[in-house]
Amino acid sequence: MQQQHHQIVKQTNGRRLYDITPDVTRWVALSGIGEGLLTLYIQHTSASILINENYDADVLVDMESFFARLVPDGDPLFIHTAEGVDDMPAHIRSALTQTSISIPVLDGKVALGTWQGVFLYEHRRMAHTRKVLLHLIGA
Amino acid sequence: MQQQHHQIVKQTNGRRLYDITPDVTRWVALSGIGEGLLTLYIQHTSASILINENYDADVLVDMESFFARLVPDGDPLFIHTAEGVDDMPAHIRSALTQTSISIPVLDGKVALGTWQGVFLYEHRRMAHTRKVLLHLIGA
Amino acid sequence: MQQQHHQIVKQTNGRRLYDITPDVTRWVALSGIGEGLLTLYIQHTSASILINENYDADVLVDMESFFARLVPDGDPLFIHTAEGVDDMPAHIRSALTQTSISIPVLDGKVALGTWQGVFLYEHRRMAHTRKVLLHLIGA
Repeated sequence: MQQQHHQIVKQTNGRRLYDITPDVTRWVALSGIGEGLLTLYIQHTSASILINENYDADVLVDMESFFARLVPDGDPLFIHTAEGVDDMPAHIRSALTQTSISIPVLDGKVALGTWQGVFLYEHRRMAHTRKVLLHLIGA
Repeated sequence: MQQQHHQIVKQTNGRRLYDITPDVTRWVALSGIGEGLLTLYIQHTSASILINENYDADVLVDMESFFARLVPDGDPLFIHTAEGVDDMPAHIRSALTQTSISIPVLDGKVALGTWQGVFLYEHRRMAHTRKVLLHLIGA
Repeated sequence: MQQQHHQIVKQTNGRRLYDITPDVTRWVALSGIGEGLLTLYIQHTSASILINENYDADVLVDMESFFARLVPDGDPLFIHTAEGVDDMPAHIRSALTQTSISIPVLDGKVALGTWQGVFLYEHRRMAHTRKVLLHLIGA
């Protein structure tokens, strides 16, 4: 049994879902681990990790439309507004989605389903540098 | 330290929560692992994993009533409609709940709380074959 | 490779977010494990685990304001009401947030981002005794 660590640094340029599947699967393929468990962890509270459909890009558009309506920017409900009208909504979107996800590794591959991709969900409007930690344990 | 993999295949017949606790706990009990970590991962983006109350079936009814109201089928907001009025809502329900959950194993048992059960949440109206991967590591 | 288990018992006194970061980081620091993976698991269906901003306490206030509006107590939609007007909302809040979270451990420290804290989110109005299990694997 062994473990490996990695970090994906992603430059975002606005509020949307970013497909990081290739970054994730490539690193696992090079790790030499055949069976194990991969964990992704995002070190932020205004961006998140999401497993989502990787086929029709309209799904990503609709996902964002839904969250924009559910957690509106500039909602007068919020008192934490010093960092911008989209900051508190970003924290709430983060709470409603995922900060960490663990995926089994089988036959040297991340065991994603046929239509699954791994996405970084940027919830802030401005560009940010986001860090996703990867931990892989197995043999 | 050792690890084991397993797959639960569940035939669903409509949108609701399916209790898979017995399938999960039975496999862990037979694994021979006394202490460790169990991870469940669902290979779909229109069904999810949820830890929920296992006692009063009304909780499952209310859970579904809430999600049906929060993410209405056929919402004109959505452009991804080719796969049916319940498809995009299913992806959003999946994003709002969980794709993976990890639970410690103690004394050879999945360390669920007294009122906790493990559920597969089918978000599509039609019948589907759903796959949940299980990864267990420990000693 | 080795693993360790721990339990945090938290006495809550009302519906809000409780910072358990010091309890978590102190235990990991004392574990002697330099690199690995920490998993937190809450044994309840009316309280949850959340990674959230640890700096401005207003974020915690706004988070609660949002969930109180999204999942209102005493909603006539619910039929599971025997345990109180805040019980079914608590189960839904639990489903919308997290029951388990896994965080890499690097250089003997939980690899939280600069502004991240680990919170127990009590969703019931009355005082409760809540149990969070910790599992740490690594070397």
